[in-house]
Amino acid sequence: MEVTRTNFKDSLSTVYSAIEEADFLAIDGEFSGISDGPNVSALTNGLDTPEERYMKLKKHSMDFLLFQFGLCTFTYDQAESKYVIKTFNFYIFPKPFNRTSPDTKFICQSSSIDFLASQGFDFNKVFRHGIPYLNQEEEVQLREQYEERRSQSNGSGNPSYISPNPNKGPGSVPEEHREYIGRVDNVHLLSYRFPKGLHVETLETEKKERYIQISKVDDEERKRRERQKQEREQEELNDAVGFSRVIHAISKSGKLVVGHNMLLDVMHTIHQFYCVLPEVQNTHHLYMNTVGFPSYDTAQEQLHEAGYDAFITGLCFISMANYLGTAFYTRYNASLTSGVSARLFLMRIIDIPYLNISGPDLQPKRDHVLYVTFPKEWKTSDLYQLFSAFGNIQVSWIDDTSAFVSLSQTDQHLQCSTSLF
Amino acid sequence: MEVTRTNFKDSLSTVYSAIEEADFLAIDGEFSGISDGPNVSALTNGLDTPEERYMKLKKHSMDFLLFQFGLCTFTYDQAESKYVIKTFNFYIFPKPFNRTSPDTKFICQSSSIDFLASQGFDFNKVFRHGIPYLNQEEEVQLREQYEERRSQSNGSGNPSYISPNPNKGPGSVPEEHREYIGRVDNVHLLSYRFPKGLHVETLETEKKERYIQISKVDDEERKRRERQKQEREQEELNDAVGFSRVIHAISKSGKLVVGHNMLLDVMHTIHQFYCVLPEVQNTHHLYMNTVGFPSYDTAQEQLHEAGYDAFITGLCFISMANYLGTAFYTRYNASLTSGVSARLFLMRIIDIPYLNISGPDLQPKRDHVLYVTFPKEWKTSDLYQLFSAFGNIQVSWIDDTSAFVSLSQTDQHLQCSTSLF
Repeated sequence: MEVTRTNFKDSLSTVYSAIEEADFLAIDGEFSGISDGPNVSALTNGLDTPEERYMKLKKHSMDFLLFQFGLCTFTYDQAESKYVIKTFNFYIFPKPFNRTSPDTKFICQSSSIDFLASQGFDFNKVFRHGIPYLNQEEEVQLREQYEERRSQSNGSGNPSYISPNPNKGPGSVPEEHREYIGRVDNVHLLSYRFPKGLHVETLETEKKERYIQISKVDDEERKRRERQKQEREQEELNDAVGFSRVIHAISKSGKLVVGHNMLLDVMHTIHQFYCVLPEVQNTHHLYMNTVGFPSYDTAQEQLHEAGYDAFITGLCFISMANYLGTAFYTRYNASLTSGVSARLFLMRIIDIPYLNISGPDLQPKRDHVLYVTFPKEWKTSDLYQLFSAFGNIQVSWIDDTSAFVSLSQTDQHLQCSTSLF
Repeated sequence: MEVTRTNFKDSLSTVYSAIEEADFLAIDGEFSGISDGPNVSALTNGLDTPEERYMKLKKHSMDFLLFQFGLCTFTYDQAESKYVIKTFNFYIFPKPFNRTSPDTKFICQSSSIDFLASQGFDFNKVFRHGIPYLNQEEEVQLREQYEERRSQSNGSGNPSYISPNPNKGPGSVPEEHREYIGRVDNVHLLSYRFPKGLHVETLETEKKERYIQISKVDDEERKRRERQKQEREQEELNDAVGFSRVIHAISKSGKLVVGHNMLLDVMHTIHQFYCVLPEVQNTHHLYMNTVGFPSYDTAQEQLHEAGYDAFITGLCFISMANYLGTAFYTRYNASLTSGVSARLFLMRIIDIPYLNISGPDLQPKRDHVLYVTFPKEWKTSDLYQLFSAFGNIQVSWIDDTSAFVSLSQTDQHLQCSTSLF
């Protein structure tokens, strides 16, 4: 199911119940780029520690935009002995909400954009119809703006205007604004004449022209209008929070979330829809666990559409779990589900397969790894030659003049350090 | 006329002759954003000097992408007493040319993207079919790459391989590569057996698989193939330089170029298609002067499509010139054309209407302007009150705690400084 700003509000209950009924969820994101600095091999050195990998991605990858989010919900149907699968493809864009809302800047990387374009990605759908979002801080700010406006408005029976600062006499009103201020003052006087029976509201036409509407109303009507206005404001706030509501629902569900190579997806999701990423990876507070209308057919490949990728990931997960003979992901084994650790695959790290969200990271032995510096003309073959006496080696480049060299026979490392340095 | 990567090569001769025959040209650009930091009022302070304005735009505006370039050529038809107008709308995108070419990153500003989206701008056309480009430095680098490869190839009758470094014995060849190196060595041997009659070439299949093609050829055939290859390489180079070729043609034509609020367009054009912008505005070296198929009808508005905006700008220019009674822009008054100064309008600067490319900038008197600092709670009205004794003032905000205050009666400034400080 394709979800844009146009049908988002109507789809939300469908999304919520899909998450609610699911046994597990699969997610995937598409981004406007990967690295604003180092190339991929420098960004993903084979001997990064989980902290280093996390900090590199935080520094070089977070200014790109996650502009498509795929969610696939998997629910096991006991009677039919098959999975019911619902797939959602959300298009996401930080359309400024109003004149004071943040005007987000994001980076695009030509190679990533070119890759997505070659896969038929629809950028017009993102930029014209993407669903907006707010992170938690922005949501709080917007809520406070509304509350401040409300406390200044006629909730207490007073007309809605900000009283002029008594310390500033009319002398501070510049010549060209006097006529306008005079007109506003008439409203002021009106409010004295109708202390309880006036409803004052600032409205905007479709052409963004603002005007003040003053109606003479009785107490009951005034209260009814206030309620209406509050409901409208709440709806506006919900619209602004937008796609973040889906992420909140996933997070609250506590369900198992699976993904492929998901570190970047999880980091972008937190960064864009929750909060600034912490300095070290203590993402434990976001313990997201996650699951159809079979809208995809594996015969018709739509790789690199986020929803399809999430769908495929879920299928792989089911096959893998079946292969391993565990049925922990069915609702009838929910107790097992809670025992699953939250792990994020670490791409291209030689000896640490995953980042552990629910506990301490693995600490592999690395005493067979040497840090080597050399002239910048050196190539991998020069390192092979230098270490030729030590059997096969693995070279992880750091930059032009340094690399990690892993010896395959770990008992030789002491000998090696002696003979080399 | 809409020009994308698909029809660019075929359209180029049409574009060149339109520029060639034109009396003057109008240009316009569309960008992915305007400011990566300050808001518009801070970016365009009313009391900026031309240098300050230039430096601010250079710092905060150049990381956005110029992704649509409108060119409109105007040619006066003496016989018909009317203008022949040709309009071109170029879609532009820095698609990486090959594996070693620059992977450009550019910023998008949500409000700008949203604005263009609301005007029906086609982002898919930009990202899927945009014309690539290189600046002069990148063009030189690519040319050198080609020349280096050529000097290593069989232009001199030697087979095209890089001879292995004699200082490195076979001992440096790792186990897993020995079999491959052995095979390559056979090629090496072949070349000794056929010292003049071999043509060796690395080719790539459509699936990007690379292979080496070795053909036994006579001397004439070898030279013919070399020539073919050089022509192919020259064409590849031209394709990579891409849209920059249009800018070179405009620049070389020496024709009058008009635009509206053109400072940003000119700066982006230089930055993207020529070179890094100089530290101070000595853009004199790029003295661009610039001219139909009437593809636009003023009745059908297509505002904010770059080609249409350029078209409208040209029409305004003709009306204005007619009104002033000058006919300097017709080809029959070419001598007058060369006397036109190159001026770029400076938006929202109170007393310096334009940046002068062809001479020194205007130096308006500013001894009635005060630099004022104050607590961050102050508003414009507080400044009006403070200066109420001095008649009307104009406030140009710098930041939260400082502003320029221009007094309208310049003879009061000394009095004012005495009484205030």
